[in-house]
Formats: sequence, structure tokens, C-alpha cells
Amino acid sequence: MTSWIRFQSADEKFGFGVLEDDCVIEYEGDMFGTARSIGIERHLDQISLTSPCAPSKVVALWNNFYALAEKLGKAPPSHPLFLIKPPMSVIGHGQPIVRPACYDGKIAYEGELGIVIGKRCSNVTVQEADAYIFGYTCVNDVTAAELLNEDPNFAQWCRAKGFDTFSCIGPAIRSDFDWQSARVVTRLDDVERQNYPLSDMIFSPAQQVSLISQDMTLMPGDVIACGTSVGVGSIKDGATVSVSIDGIGALSNVLQLRRTPSGAAEG
Amino acid sequence: MTSWIRFQSADEKFGFGVLEDDCVIEYEGDMFGTARSIGIERHLDQISLTSPCAPSKVVALWNNFYALAEKLGKAPPSHPLFLIKPPMSVIGHGQPIVRPACYDGKIAYEGELGIVIGKRCSNVTVQEADAYIFGYTCVNDVTAAELLNEDPNFAQWCRAKGFDTFSCIGPAIRSDFDWQSARVVTRLDDVERQNYPLSDMIFSPAQQVSLISQDMTLMPGDVIACGTSVGVGSIKDGATVSVSIDGIGALSNVLQLRRTPSGAAEG
Repeated sequence: MTSWIRFQSADEKFGFGVLEDDCVIEYEGDMFGTARSIGIERHLDQISLTSPCAPSKVVALWNNFYALAEKLGKAPPSHPLFLIKPPMSVIGHGQPIVRPACYDGKIAYEGELGIVIGKRCSNVTVQEADAYIFGYTCVNDVTAAELLNEDPNFAQWCRAKGFDTFSCIGPAIRSDFDWQSARVVTRLDDVERQNYPLSDMIFSPAQQVSLISQDMTLMPGDVIACGTSVGVGSIKDGATVSVSIDGIGALSNVLQLRRTPSGAAEG
Repeated sequence: MTSWIRFQSADEKFGFGVLEDDCVIEYEGDMFGTARSIGIERHLDQISLTSPCAPSKVVALWNNFYALAEKLGKAPPSHPLFLIKPPMSVIGHGQPIVRPACYDGKIAYEGELGIVIGKRCSNVTVQEADAYIFGYTCVNDVTAAELLNEDPNFAQWCRAKGFDTFSCIGPAIRSDFDWQSARVVTRLDDVERQNYPLSDMIFSPAQQVSLISQDMTLMPGDVIACGTSVGVGSIKDGATVSVSIDGIGALSNVLQLRRTPSGAAEG
């Protein structure tokens, strides 16, 4: 079991490494290729986490949990249903979610498991898929909910979920993670809002990687957000969303308080 | 007026430069930053074109021409309606469109104008937008049409349009291009199928850049595919689609003949 993080140190340098208790052992090289320890240990107090990887795309699933499908009255799909979130939407643990300047509406959280791809893959089978998974992380798949159905003819998934800072990923990537016995717990200002078992997934991680690799080549560092289950809700400006998965950690992000032109924060 | 291309030479090296008649003058540096000629002239016969840029994302518009909106009976939208196509979907002039291994259905072409972003931009006004446009190119926005509405609850835009090779871009990026007087002409095996004026666009290029920059940060090399108009149709395996815009050039791509497991081509 290894937990990988990326970070920025006080001297503004970016690095990556492996978590050990309250420290990170810094590595050099390629997290997804050849990486070796450079023997420097940094305390977590001395660094700021960034997203643990820099995806070329985030593939975000919709309708991938039986409990939510039943609540919404939707049949389980025959293939993963997904949208694509752009690289600039990605932030890490502790970085703020920023409300779009032109949007005053409801912003929703969705706590999810994230699959991090380790090797370029295209058309892999379900049996082969695990070998292409580098590890797992937590995701908060943020949505500007009122934009989704603003146009009667076109569901704006990519716009509503694609804003800068709307893909919170982290805090770490955990290899050798047993997703089948784990639960996703989402807290809003410390109040539990989601607590669902990953065993309720419609498409397992290996099925997702296999089926999506038939739709597009997946690259090292790409993230598949496995979809959410019941308990989705909205975030008030200034509130903190924390997505926790035992064995991976807790990913916390604040929806930044809006600033007026004079610079004063609005509630 | 300058036309930029990227290419691979016979010795497998990648380069970029400026078109002059039948030659490219090779440059070094950053196409979107500081680039200077290195004094090497290569004949187009001696190089293979690649896509003229490597977008971090392709933002593809739907319902952006009055003629097509009227034909489909759809109201013009109040904001650009878009989906995101991933980087691996991009190919250049002369490279083959590859039918997904698991898909036997209709594959459609859409001839479009492409806007190429030159500078990182976020929240720019319509008046500022032109300064962030590096130039214009041709796009064939390819769709696995039967996947789009395969699921009754979720239009699969990103899947149907996101396959590797489904964003044909090129042959060149033309700066100082007057889109207002230009037409997009799409030919299927030399038969004209689309011929529409860009002046019929609902959102102009500057409006698109401004409004989409309010949804997400656009990066140098990113491409906005401006949407198509009437005349969309399907491509048979082995057929050639050519998208031409006067002043930019002609972008041609073959839908590759399918190979059977024995290696023989199927018609």
C-alpha cells in the first residue's frame, strides 16, 4: 500500500512523493513510470497539497449506482454514461472551489471514488483493466446545477461541471486499494450528507476502464470519476465539503466566499 | 496573413512552420509565443502534416447556425451550447479517421470553422476576445451518430464525438482571416454536401471566445469548433471527407476501411 501526493513547498517548488505518517518522502522521476526517492522528508505542515495527478481529461460518470438510479427512477445503463471535464477544472485538497463570476445559482457537491490511470490504454478487456489502474483517489464532482437544464434542447453537462476548480481530486492516490469494502462519506461543514458503499456500483472500476478504453485512449494520470449515489446537495458560499474514503483519506475544499468589487466578502 | 502548420519529416522529426507556396519555412520556439525561422525550407512532398496544434481540449458547439436551427425547429440558444472532446481525438490533414472496433453504425461528418486560441484567457469581453484568437482552421467534427441517443436518459455527446481520430483539424492555422465573408464547403468523395456561409453563425467567434472564457480558462492551442450547418451526412468506410474554407485550405481525411482479423479490408 502506497499513497502518492503532489505538493508545492514553501519555496514554491513543485514535487511529488509518498506519504508516511505526517511526512512525505520526496521522489523524482515519473510517478507513473520510474520514480525513486531522493531521501528528502518534508512534514505536511511545510507543504501545500495540489491535485495528486494532472489529468489530460476527467471522465465523469452519471447513473452508476443502483441506489441513486432507483431513487431517480432510471434504468441501469448498458454502457458507462459519461461527460468529459477539462484539465483546468482540476484542483487538489485544500484549494478553493471558485464560484463562476457570472453564476449566482445553486452549486452542488458529489462525493465520488476516482480511478487514476497508470498506463496508456486502449481497448483493454475487463481482465486486463486492473493492470492499467495506478490507484484510487477521492473526487468532489462539482456542478453549477441550474445551468444543466437551462436550454430545453441540450443538457449542458460539460458546461455545468467544467468550470475551473469544479473537479476536486485528492488528497492522495492510494495503490492496492480494496474498493469493494469501502464507503464514500461526504460531509458538508462537518454534517454527514452522503455515506454509501462502493459495492453498489453498477460498473466496477475494471469494467469502467475496459469499456471507456474502447471509447477513447486513456492516458497516465487520467481520472475516471465513478459517479455518485444518494445524498447530493448544494454548497453555500463559504461552506466546506469533505469527501472521505477509508484507506485513501479526506479531500476538503471550501466554496470560496464571493468578493464584492470593493473586496468585502459576501455571506 | 500567415498559415501555420505542424509536420513530421521523413526522418520522423516533428516540426512547425509557415506555409509559402508548396513549401514550409521551418520555425523553432513556441508557435503561440516567440517563434523564429531557422532558415530551413521543406517541400510539402517531403513532410506529413499533423494537426496544426495540440489542444488541451476541443470545445465543440451545437446549434450555432440559424439555417440548421430553423431546419431542426430549435430556438437559437442564449449561450453557446457545447461539449468537450479530449486531446486524443485530434488528428490532422491526411490522417485516417478510425472506426471504433466495437461500433458498426453510422459515422457522420460535420464541416466546421475552428477557432485556435493564442493566449490563456478567462473572463474576457467580446471586445477583448479577438486579441486571444491566434487564427482559424477547418474542423471535421466526427460523430458515431447511433450512440448519441442510445440511452433514453442521457445524450452521449462526449462518447459519440470523443473517439480517437474524431476531431480532424487542419490543414493549417490562418491568422488575419476574414470569417465574415467565407463559406464552409464539405465534400464527400468529391461530391459537395455542405456549402454554407459563416455569416449565418449565431454566436460570432469573438462572442464564443468571450462567453466560453467565462465558463473555463482557454489555453494556447485550444480549439473551439464553431458548430455546423445544414448538409450533415454519413461517411461510408473508405470514403474521403474534405472540409474547405477559402483562405485556410482543405482538410481531407479518409474513414479507414475496416480490417478483418485476417487483415483483409472490408468494403
